[in-house]
Amino acid sequence: MLKRYLLAPGPTPVSPEVLLAMAKPVIHHRAPEFAELFGEVREGLKWLFQTKNDVLILASSGTGGMEGAVANFLSPGDRALVVNGGKFGERWGKICKTFGAHVTEIKVEWGHAVDPQAVADVLKKDPAIKAVYVQASETSTGVAHDTKALAEVVRTCEGTILVVDAITALGVFDIQTDAWGLDVVVTGSQKALMLPPGLAFVSVSEKAWQVAEKARNGAFYFDLKKERASQVKNQTAYTPAVSMIIGLQEVLRTLKAEGLDAVFARQERLAHAMREGVKAAGLSLFPKMSPSNALTAISAPDGVDGQAIYKNLRVQYGITAAGGQDHLKGQIFRIAHMGYVDTFDVIMSLAAVEMVLKSLGHSIKLGSGVAKAQELLLAKS
Amino acid sequence: MLKRYLLAPGPTPVSPEVLLAMAKPVIHHRAPEFAELFGEVREGLKWLFQTKNDVLILASSGTGGMEGAVANFLSPGDRALVVNGGKFGERWGKICKTFGAHVTEIKVEWGHAVDPQAVADVLKKDPAIKAVYVQASETSTGVAHDTKALAEVVRTCEGTILVVDAITALGVFDIQTDAWGLDVVVTGSQKALMLPPGLAFVSVSEKAWQVAEKARNGAFYFDLKKERASQVKNQTAYTPAVSMIIGLQEVLRTLKAEGLDAVFARQERLAHAMREGVKAAGLSLFPKMSPSNALTAISAPDGVDGQAIYKNLRVQYGITAAGGQDHLKGQIFRIAHMGYVDTFDVIMSLAAVEMVLKSLGHSIKLGSGVAKAQELLLAKS
Repeated sequence: MLKRYLLAPGPTPVSPEVLLAMAKPVIHHRAPEFAELFGEVREGLKWLFQTKNDVLILASSGTGGMEGAVANFLSPGDRALVVNGGKFGERWGKICKTFGAHVTEIKVEWGHAVDPQAVADVLKKDPAIKAVYVQASETSTGVAHDTKALAEVVRTCEGTILVVDAITALGVFDIQTDAWGLDVVVTGSQKALMLPPGLAFVSVSEKAWQVAEKARNGAFYFDLKKERASQVKNQTAYTPAVSMIIGLQEVLRTLKAEGLDAVFARQERLAHAMREGVKAAGLSLFPKMSPSNALTAISAPDGVDGQAIYKNLRVQYGITAAGGQDHLKGQIFRIAHMGYVDTFDVIMSLAAVEMVLKSLGHSIKLGSGVAKAQELLLAKS
Repeated sequence: MLKRYLLAPGPTPVSPEVLLAMAKPVIHHRAPEFAELFGEVREGLKWLFQTKNDVLILASSGTGGMEGAVANFLSPGDRALVVNGGKFGERWGKICKTFGAHVTEIKVEWGHAVDPQAVADVLKKDPAIKAVYVQASETSTGVAHDTKALAEVVRTCEGTILVVDAITALGVFDIQTDAWGLDVVVTGSQKALMLPPGLAFVSVSEKAWQVAEKARNGAFYFDLKKERASQVKNQTAYTPAVSMIIGLQEVLRTLKAEGLDAVFARQERLAHAMREGVKAAGLSLFPKMSPSNALTAISAPDGVDGQAIYKNLRVQYGITAAGGQDHLKGQIFRIAHMGYVDTFDVIMSLAAVEMVLKSLGHSIKLGSGVAKAQELLLAKS
């Protein structure tokens, strides 16, 4: 028996309570029970997104939400600014191009966060830019971009909206949709929301709805205006993923009971212990600045293949983490600590990394990272 | 306690075995276990679709599959022929227009099936038509269109493909994708596939892939070419709905154990008993021809509101069926008998309809429809 642990940056573990909630008999999406359920989760999502805006629920994975956040706001020929600091920033650019937008890209070195001044400079030179696309947490590098500062920049540009991929951010660290002025915020079910993949969520500000009024791209399944018209009546335009929404109700109740500040503090505490444990074990964090609390990207030590670490975690210890993507393949490995995770997920991760590195011939003192995490998690518990 | 029964034309009941399979811990979609699972369900879907073509799996409800079946094959300005014999035929037209196609519609009176000759006539007049869109089973009216005959018509037109919405058909009655020459076939998880909503499936023929090569519409999330490139390697382009795919494995194993012919025979037996029971109770079927074995659309008797029947089934007896859509609202009600259903679902439905009609003041002999169904289900069991 090899006991299995899911510590990838999505999907993340789902609690037994939520798995069982989703195993309840399916209800019909036009029945009154569904409308009641849907009304509750809509309110819960507004609380989670810290917004009074509509938060729309889509039956798709996160990329579907990203597509909706492009197709509904840009027309062919429109100008878009994309912050590309990793795999998912790159994806914003690809989606924008698919929908005919003229894309200006700010390339950010992988492992770095964007300088908000760079965004301000581009917007000043090109005020015709309709939308700025960025990640709150770039999953490929483990870096968080400062969406609060970016919103301060974009807010001053009339007619320009800020679109935030918060897929590995929302529910991990503070994202104040309304207070900061984030116009469109996208997330998915399989990250901090502790559900299987299959739902995307998109919040839309009044400023963004006004931009959407003029957009002329073909959106049908991801037509957010149509979804809004249905969802304010606690229905969906097309058949929703009912079981997932039953699970979501359970998750939102759990998060509410814990409280947003407590959730963020827990995630911060775990992420901090993970990072300090990594350093205490003599390893280097990949991010050069602004690490995301959702996951830790760790540089493979010289002479050790990052893919071998990732693979051995799985094969020897049953832990599914993640390797590096694209040019980082082999150079880094990534361990997530968002959602349904606690103290011992971090301790176990560090212990396993130490053991894998040792068995790969790397010189490491067993327990060095673990002890540091224990100390930090003890002190703050 | 009001015991609940789901007899709507989607979502349909999910068996406890499948609900529990989906409650298994989530696995990572880039792990080898997932590739193995995905490989098995891909093969199972080919068996179910009766095809050697790729059958792509999408994380969306059925409408997402329909969108993919438009956006990937038509360019703006392309000509499309839509058979519109109900709410879902109408939807084909709306999607085609969203993606800039020039749509010719054959309007079929609700309750009737399309005459294949009418399609042949339009194609003869306008050979530039790139694709013909039709439902195998039009859920709003309970009518099955003859896709085999339509394929014989379309097959003779070089460069024209037949796209079939088989969302309430596949797994209910015989759909021979390859033998009949159906180029694109779409279905969803929440019908005969006995799963919650959240997955769409699309099979694509070689002829259709050739059409797709030339299409210039913006498809990103529903980019079928990109999905094919991933799925042949037992991966998906974007995060798949893992739990649903675990459930699908269970469903396909069950269907394989029963055998396709036995599944179709069971569905036919139940549908036939339902229709004869309805008639024996003195009620009229709404379809004037070619009733679908997926569901039975029943005309409300004179002086009785169809919506009241539908509502009372739910409130008095816990049965979620469906009312009529658009101009049929109040005139019909619909009861499904596809997927995880057997003899006593039909008998219960008929008994409940009789009891509801009686309580609404309609003159009906209790047990009249039930007895007919009993007789038919006894004889053939």
